[in-house]
Amino acid sequence: MPVNLTAPDPASLHAVRGVEIGTAMAGVRKANRRDVTVVQLAEGASVSGVFTANRFCAAPVLLCREHLAAGQGIRAILVNTGNANAGTGADGLARARSTCAVLGKLLGVTPQQVLPFSTGVIMETLPHERIEAALPTALADARPDHWAVAAEAIMTTDTVPKAASRQVVLGGKTVHISGISKGAGMIRPNMATMLGFIATDAAIDPALMPQLVKDAADASFNRITIDGDTSTNDSFVMIATHQAGNPTITQWTQGDGAVLREALIDVARQLAQAIVRDGEGATKFITVQVQGGRDGAECRKVAYAIGHSPLVKTAFFASDPNLGRILAAVGYAGIDDLDQSLIDLYLDDVHVATRGARHPGYAEEQGQRVMKQSEITVRVDLHRGTASDTVWTCDLSHDYVSINADYRS
Amino acid sequence: MPVNLTAPDPASLHAVRGVEIGTAMAGVRKANRRDVTVVQLAEGASVSGVFTANRFCAAPVLLCREHLAAGQGIRAILVNTGNANAGTGADGLARARSTCAVLGKLLGVTPQQVLPFSTGVIMETLPHERIEAALPTALADARPDHWAVAAEAIMTTDTVPKAASRQVVLGGKTVHISGISKGAGMIRPNMATMLGFIATDAAIDPALMPQLVKDAADASFNRITIDGDTSTNDSFVMIATHQAGNPTITQWTQGDGAVLREALIDVARQLAQAIVRDGEGATKFITVQVQGGRDGAECRKVAYAIGHSPLVKTAFFASDPNLGRILAAVGYAGIDDLDQSLIDLYLDDVHVATRGARHPGYAEEQGQRVMKQSEITVRVDLHRGTASDTVWTCDLSHDYVSINADYRS
Repeated sequence: MPVNLTAPDPASLHAVRGVEIGTAMAGVRKANRRDVTVVQLAEGASVSGVFTANRFCAAPVLLCREHLAAGQGIRAILVNTGNANAGTGADGLARARSTCAVLGKLLGVTPQQVLPFSTGVIMETLPHERIEAALPTALADARPDHWAVAAEAIMTTDTVPKAASRQVVLGGKTVHISGISKGAGMIRPNMATMLGFIATDAAIDPALMPQLVKDAADASFNRITIDGDTSTNDSFVMIATHQAGNPTITQWTQGDGAVLREALIDVARQLAQAIVRDGEGATKFITVQVQGGRDGAECRKVAYAIGHSPLVKTAFFASDPNLGRILAAVGYAGIDDLDQSLIDLYLDDVHVATRGARHPGYAEEQGQRVMKQSEITVRVDLHRGTASDTVWTCDLSHDYVSINADYRS
Repeated sequence: MPVNLTAPDPASLHAVRGVEIGTAMAGVRKANRRDVTVVQLAEGASVSGVFTANRFCAAPVLLCREHLAAGQGIRAILVNTGNANAGTGADGLARARSTCAVLGKLLGVTPQQVLPFSTGVIMETLPHERIEAALPTALADARPDHWAVAAEAIMTTDTVPKAASRQVVLGGKTVHISGISKGAGMIRPNMATMLGFIATDAAIDPALMPQLVKDAADASFNRITIDGDTSTNDSFVMIATHQAGNPTITQWTQGDGAVLREALIDVARQLAQAIVRDGEGATKFITVQVQGGRDGAECRKVAYAIGHSPLVKTAFFASDPNLGRILAAVGYAGIDDLDQSLIDLYLDDVHVATRGARHPGYAEEQGQRVMKQSEITVRVDLHRGTASDTVWTCDLSHDYVSINADYRS
């Protein structure tokens, strides 16, 4: 059961001028499900991406980097679910290349103008012929209003499709932003078996795109963790088709630029948080805020130590205010000169620990009350500086084990 | 159900001259269980310890460091289960000091000659009066052959008491080694909610002890992981009473010194592996060997990435040879210049992956056969150097979640 997350209303997802999406059933792993998605981009679209930090990255990730570097202009995105094409060596790379070549030929563009994405089981051979055979159907299905269908077609162990959309007015022109994401396990900083795609029809100076996608990832997908595993396939791509007719955005710091940036990051954050809300077996959505650090990096260390601790996560699952486990996680986060006698710990509005020990006014019932909520904020104050950072995570339940023990069956 | 681990036969645990052990029921957390243990040491015993790297270390850990530094000679070890006395601030420290003072007074030694150890729930007030009231009973119970009773009295979520013993002949004299340990969750490198005590009656140059306990920990307790959490209370102590009559050991590199060192490390390793075998919810004992690294540190990074991955651990629980998850863990272990196309992966005798991809001769049935075993060796060859290292871990099961969700109820 996802935490306060429902399937998006298709009507709420704005079409983005210059983007058409079609899906098909290729039978990659299972029959009778949409498992191939093609996103077609109008000529002139700008595309930037960030990809997994896993050294064992999948064939499609290698090709994405290669094709973006080729600089020929991306005209299509091809996503398959059911097979990650990772741990597949030179053969996997050849199969991924083949899918790009076939799609490119169908669209009259080069293979380098196609970005491939795969998600699913690792170390299995990609059935590229079946994907290629399904491409004409996916192209015939292309429509601007297929965001919701695509959100469903890219799912793996996700239980709910994930999409978000916004529109803003820039220089009198309405600009649309729509995005989809998938991922429910193998999620951690530096991305996950996580795919995210956001497109806008805003006109943006293409030179601004690489930093934008990085900043958006850092504010969203790089701040979530479910199980601490970093996948081989994580990818987040941002597209600007420049067709909205707004005055071209040339900076992010003020006016229209700041408005657009905020809207894009908001969509990215919604998509990232949706992944946590649908975290494998998740029953609670937990915001971990760490403040009073010397710098952001040490705040993140502490936040991730809390967010990754199986002991903390099972306590949340049990609604058990066993809050000493949080203090223990703070203690092993890797800050060598941490002074435990300065630490404050809050659970929502409840002051649980002060100066590193149980707060005298804290009563177990207060902790219990907060722990029973479906959304909980853990706040740690290190009292050693002015930096802060936030990470989102979920609890660890019986269902996490069930889902991952049974994933391939 | 622990993995191939049964309670020790009390008769197999050798008495160690100069060591007497007594236990009592203090009702620290639960009634009618032995929860207080006192280990009395003859005058002249040498004691060295290594303690948690967690910055949030418990009051007894702070006192152990202080009392060892005082250099007055340790005469007693006091262990309580049921309460970790961690996250308890100045009040917790005062309560721990009080227990040492009371025990010291009963024994006619200073408080600084007592080392206190606590394990159990964090952030609860230590009921020190109840512990102190039980001390006369524990002292009256003192006997040299109480190792098995003590192993049981220090348990928390352990399901089986953990003890190991050996004897070796040095210079014609029989020397005894006995040890006990506890811990079943919150286990990871740099120790865990793990307590380990090993005593020998061998005569050893006291100057050799600090390095010995460090080396023994590095070869045993610092090579195990269950859930990646490092506890606030981890402690490993080695005692030499010097009463066996052997020629004093003055080096570890050859002859009697090498024999004794090997025996001590063997006992430490048995005690550490017993903790993994009794890991919370464990159904499998997994040895992770990483070879072909440039140095030991990078081999350990890879071994721990595998050993900590919830996805890998649930796959072992399910006996599912979803081995791509292991490759993914290798990829995010943090070796920046790792070449994935060099990696070999073996599951016991089965060659699963070669050059970073599925081995052409590998069939799923082979992996399945090994995965069904209760003891499995994962071997990764990085092919970038000659270093190697080994870590022991267990799988992640439904019972892990149950145990940790219900721990305090």
